[in-house]
Amino acid sequence: MERNRALEIVAKQLTDKRYKHTLGVTETAIHLAKIYNVDEKKAELAAIFHDYAKFRPLDEMKQIIIEQKFDSNLLEFNPELWHAPVGAYLVEHEAGISDSDILSAIRYHTSGREKMTSLEKVIYVADYIEPGRSFPGVDEARKLAEKDLNEALFFAVKNTILFLMNKNQSVFPDTFRLYNDLVKKER
Amino acid sequence: MERNRALEIVAKQLTDKRYKHTLGVTETAIHLAKIYNVDEKKAELAAIFHDYAKFRPLDEMKQIIIEQKFDSNLLEFNPELWHAPVGAYLVEHEAGISDSDILSAIRYHTSGREKMTSLEKVIYVADYIEPGRSFPGVDEARKLAEKDLNEALFFAVKNTILFLMNKNQSVFPDTFRLYNDLVKKER
Repeated sequence: MERNRALEIVAKQLTDKRYKHTLGVTETAIHLAKIYNVDEKKAELAAIFHDYAKFRPLDEMKQIIIEQKFDSNLLEFNPELWHAPVGAYLVEHEAGISDSDILSAIRYHTSGREKMTSLEKVIYVADYIEPGRSFPGVDEARKLAEKDLNEALFFAVKNTILFLMNKNQSVFPDTFRLYNDLVKKER
Repeated sequence: MERNRALEIVAKQLTDKRYKHTLGVTETAIHLAKIYNVDEKKAELAAIFHDYAKFRPLDEMKQIIIEQKFDSNLLEFNPELWHAPVGAYLVEHEAGISDSDILSAIRYHTSGREKMTSLEKVIYVADYIEPGRSFPGVDEARKLAEKDLNEALFFAVKNTILFLMNKNQSVFPDTFRLYNDLVKKER
């Protein structure tokens, strides 16, 4: 799918602010894809579509999670997680994207998972550091991303867990598994 | 088993420092058992024996984990975790303690787990706050333990995870599950 067609589709699903975020993620994902020898076209499309389901009603997302038999843990955890797997489903069925690499990058862009593909890492990290992001540590994350994708991913997932725990919020098991995976193997 | 006989058995397994810690945990566990209507005798014995395997050689512990088919994840995580399940096994087979409540309190005193029993919680928290412990936050944990066992447990498990993550160490899955369990259900 051409970039402009993809942007046209996704623009209808997003607020202006979220569309701007999507453009930032796309630019960053292409940049990281170049550095880490990831397919740039796949990175571009995964980034454009990563938040496709962000503004779907919770009821609709819940129904899709149940009907499509997604990880039933999702329903017990933060609904903020739902738009990622639901997005992968809707991008396939509504936007006609069938590439499984792109779909899994969308599916895991919020929770992460053990043994992420390089494309999944690029989208996860791009979402964390795109130019519109502003939080303590984002500059360090940006620097790490230029040097070592796994270090940047580790930084992002660790800080995400610490952020959630400092608010006494639950942490999705896939996210913990990613953290442990990076501690033990990849770094 | 009588207290003195139990202490005599365990004294042979521990350094003086660790024996003193054990006495502190025992005193604290009995105190908490009284507050939270937990069997005091079981709390006493679980506390006395909780660190029974603390100084066993890693090779011996590893062999027991493999032969007894304990959670194979253990071998991929911090060996500091091993003395708890191995201790439960040795306390049963060497010291002749057969009470399953006591053994599970020993088994989970380091990692914790989802859906802990009250006795397991008492031992976990007593181990964290016994009078010999000295770390930032221990006084707050002690105050919480007088008022609400689940709050004290949550405080302990959350700080344990944060401590490990700040050192970029892995966190055993049972410990994360306990954290999420307490966030979602018990508090």
